[in-house]
Amino acid sequence: MSHKTDIQIAREANKKPIQEIGAKLGIGSEHLLPYGHDKAKVAQDFITSLSDRPDGKLILVTAINPTPAGEGKTTTTVGLGDGLNAIGKKAAIAIREASLGPNFGMKGGAAGGGYAQVVPMEDMNLHFTGDFHAITAAHNLLAAMIDNHIYWGNELGIDERRVVWRRVLDMNDRALRDVVTSLGGVSNGFPRQTGFDITVASEVMAILCLADDLDDLQSKLGDIIVAYTRDRAPITCRQIGADGAMTVLLKDAMQPNLVQTLENNPAFVHGGPFANIAHGCNSLIATRTALKLADYVVTEAGFGADLGAEKFMNIKCRKGGIAPSVVVIVATVRAMKMNGGVAKADLGAENVAAVKAGCPNLGRHIENVKSFGVPVVVAINHFVSDTEAEIQAVKDYVEGHGSEAIVARHWADGSAGIIELATRVAEIADKDSAHFAPLYPDEMGLFQKIETIAKRIYRADEVLADKKIRDQLKAWEEAGYGDLPVCMAKTQYSFSTDPNLRGAPTGHSVPVREVRLSAGAGFIVVICGEIMTMPGLPSKPAAMSIRISDDGEIEGLF
Amino acid sequence: MSHKTDIQIAREANKKPIQEIGAKLGIGSEHLLPYGHDKAKVAQDFITSLSDRPDGKLILVTAINPTPAGEGKTTTTVGLGDGLNAIGKKAAIAIREASLGPNFGMKGGAAGGGYAQVVPMEDMNLHFTGDFHAITAAHNLLAAMIDNHIYWGNELGIDERRVVWRRVLDMNDRALRDVVTSLGGVSNGFPRQTGFDITVASEVMAILCLADDLDDLQSKLGDIIVAYTRDRAPITCRQIGADGAMTVLLKDAMQPNLVQTLENNPAFVHGGPFANIAHGCNSLIATRTALKLADYVVTEAGFGADLGAEKFMNIKCRKGGIAPSVVVIVATVRAMKMNGGVAKADLGAENVAAVKAGCPNLGRHIENVKSFGVPVVVAINHFVSDTEAEIQAVKDYVEGHGSEAIVARHWADGSAGIIELATRVAEIADKDSAHFAPLYPDEMGLFQKIETIAKRIYRADEVLADKKIRDQLKAWEEAGYGDLPVCMAKTQYSFSTDPNLRGAPTGHSVPVREVRLSAGAGFIVVICGEIMTMPGLPSKPAAMSIRISDDGEIEGLF
Repeated sequence: MSHKTDIQIAREANKKPIQEIGAKLGIGSEHLLPYGHDKAKVAQDFITSLSDRPDGKLILVTAINPTPAGEGKTTTTVGLGDGLNAIGKKAAIAIREASLGPNFGMKGGAAGGGYAQVVPMEDMNLHFTGDFHAITAAHNLLAAMIDNHIYWGNELGIDERRVVWRRVLDMNDRALRDVVTSLGGVSNGFPRQTGFDITVASEVMAILCLADDLDDLQSKLGDIIVAYTRDRAPITCRQIGADGAMTVLLKDAMQPNLVQTLENNPAFVHGGPFANIAHGCNSLIATRTALKLADYVVTEAGFGADLGAEKFMNIKCRKGGIAPSVVVIVATVRAMKMNGGVAKADLGAENVAAVKAGCPNLGRHIENVKSFGVPVVVAINHFVSDTEAEIQAVKDYVEGHGSEAIVARHWADGSAGIIELATRVAEIADKDSAHFAPLYPDEMGLFQKIETIAKRIYRADEVLADKKIRDQLKAWEEAGYGDLPVCMAKTQYSFSTDPNLRGAPTGHSVPVREVRLSAGAGFIVVICGEIMTMPGLPSKPAAMSIRISDDGEIEGLF
Repeated sequence: MSHKTDIQIAREANKKPIQEIGAKLGIGSEHLLPYGHDKAKVAQDFITSLSDRPDGKLILVTAINPTPAGEGKTTTTVGLGDGLNAIGKKAAIAIREASLGPNFGMKGGAAGGGYAQVVPMEDMNLHFTGDFHAITAAHNLLAAMIDNHIYWGNELGIDERRVVWRRVLDMNDRALRDVVTSLGGVSNGFPRQTGFDITVASEVMAILCLADDLDDLQSKLGDIIVAYTRDRAPITCRQIGADGAMTVLLKDAMQPNLVQTLENNPAFVHGGPFANIAHGCNSLIATRTALKLADYVVTEAGFGADLGAEKFMNIKCRKGGIAPSVVVIVATVRAMKMNGGVAKADLGAENVAAVKAGCPNLGRHIENVKSFGVPVVVAINHFVSDTEAEIQAVKDYVEGHGSEAIVARHWADGSAGIIELATRVAEIADKDSAHFAPLYPDEMGLFQKIETIAKRIYRADEVLADKKIRDQLKAWEEAGYGDLPVCMAKTQYSFSTDPNLRGAPTGHSVPVREVRLSAGAGFIVVICGEIMTMPGLPSKPAAMSIRISDDGEIEGLF
């Protein structure tokens, strides 16, 4: 058991040149576009050349509803990838990139933790390979071209009041949420009210993460609805003429990034759509590339399984024609206790009764994930304070739900701590017992899709939506968008829309506050509760402590 | 004589791996941080290790006042670098990076032209190594932290009406010139009027280009004045606490970029401050690094010598403790004709009289540059339409001004076309005949500095400035900023402030419209005429034609 911090461990990593990591997957160094010595993009031509290869097995890591106790989903994803490699499997992981802006508010995060991390941590919390900057540029080029179109005569007849395309920055900047632009007179255009979102909330980000290739990227970008005319006809990015230039700006960003774990195993880190107004998982192109190159690919979905895994299955898998062979649900004894009513301060004391009381949250996630036709294993991410009796309580509960729970100690011990889980996961994946199907068919009505998720995943009694929302959904169906999946935006802390309702609530209602069409990304965003698309900084932002220390290390970022 | 376009020539370049280019300068591959196979950053540690080495000779390329005929300054810079290598000298070039935003308005530019170019052209016109994105992020972090400070109680007592730090994007977006932020209620802060500039106009860009190292960068960033209190006391970036985090964001961007010419010679391409509200030349750290590694470094200053070379000498050389051994002034027969009154449509016909009539513009630049104590050579950048008699007229004129003019055919013939110029430039540099001194001492009064430039470089009779401006200059002198150099912002098309006044005007006045303090970069910006810090897009922006072609090439960007 180490007392080092994540960043200390990460800095002591014995990183190998990225070309050696690529070689493990059979990527020749000529197909890697290096960014420094420890990061590279995998060249598009090489990816294209892989199309006839068979796919490896996809392993999805998801979790119970997150609690302040922490569940360690990314840590388990990384640990499982290392564990599979340790038992002789050719495995890779595929996770999301970090957003730059929030790191200046709260401290930046590791990708994983303890002895299950992806490195280089500093770069991954800063500019990395520039993907998010490229998305920012592409998004804002479209915004500039919309206002420019209006300025130079507005041939398309855009209603300035109905421009829905905002601007983005990868920055926590509440002052930009709601702004009036084009002040200052005739030469600056027509004043109108608009705002900025954070880059990860951009539809361009969602599109990049769902596009098959550059052609598909351009096609999806072209489909973005940017504004409406006075008679409510949609105006697309294609009509503005920005889709080609945006694709050129995203040409490099579309190529997946390769880095490594502390144990020098390959990790694809690519894309990072917000999990509230988008689907929240790493890019399809990275997952697919990993599946062509590795026999096992461990990936993850954001938040709890009710939100992240549901969207992974119903959006990413549906659109990408991929499916997990097995799903790992991460739980911790501590989180079970919190679900069982224990306060964070009291988590250190053994409390088997609370563990048992919290387990139904886990149980429901198991049932839900199984309902997609995929086998489930529970990973108990081990904390030093866990007692044998508490662990046994979780194991017994999971067994009672027709599944199995395995303790994993990768945080403390790296791959050596997760051999049992890795072995079992590989066995299940190899059995090909999954019969994946999304929860609802494309042709189901949009409101019925929302109801299906609310009732079958959240176990709500009903969906509350006023006439305006129902009419909007009907209008989109008539406009040809009825076959799109729905992208739920709700709190991650509960199955319900009330973040304080832990455990496995029933009998609740799901109020739909707003629906939004992401015609480019190809989904309908269903907003249940507040949605924040531009965070603010706290009163003492982390940025105030971030600096380069006298010995040249970055301080305060982690 | 080739009929290929610049981009065709650039794409046919026989590029060598960037490690081979680094090796020519003795940079081991471990000290190069690659970005793909044809770009790299030179590691800061390596740069630090060079400090005891002697410097090579610095060769500045500047030009006559630009005309629509084109003078080919960058082309000559690149050609001269290749020419010096061709005659067996160890030479490098050092030029600026391109700004992304304007490429979506008008077509993007090559770095050089014909057979004197720097590659990879596509990358250099897109994200390159991400430097400008890093500057955008650092600049906007400070902006967010200012509004955040006000939001959380405004301990420093910032007057919201007197926040002078705007935001930036690397985009031509007129709608952002003048905006009101923080609308939408209490949780979004205090509404105030502000705006966005293009990233190259950021003081952060100017600072990065003048900083010695990361420590100095942080110190200069800390000095930026971001706002004033109600009683006009300045508030700095350091007080906001953003300087450390900004430095972390700029850590990689501070390392110079290495690329190559078409002839595989090393080219440093780093930094790109606007030449209107900043000094407009590539970074000091790149120039210095090049000087440590090469025996001859060819660099350039923006616009004509009255504006670019003056700022190069009085700002960059003064602050950096560097000095050119020889200055090359680029002229063309065509531009001489335009200065002599010929319209662009008539430039094809021989007109020796017009050449002679235009030469005084060149003559004055020769005199001006010599007044800094440095020897001058004129490069006649050859066009196919030039006649022998026209060329001879320029040569005779220059000889009459105690200098020499040499015809250079690098555009058509690469280094083979510029051997004579390269040989002569090396000879002069080797003689060490320069006795460089800036035009005015640090301790001269601010207004007197402006007058000195106006009278000695522009040959104006007087400087017109109202009391408010003179009082402002005095106030800055009292506040301790009197020793700063002045950074002139005026039209590049004329010695005067009237862009239509070609040739060598005298008897004009220089009206100062506004003065601005760049306390971080360390100069006073003196604005004579209109100044545009956020361009707009034209009615048919280039972006509408930019796309990836069916064969995977970028179309429409060049």
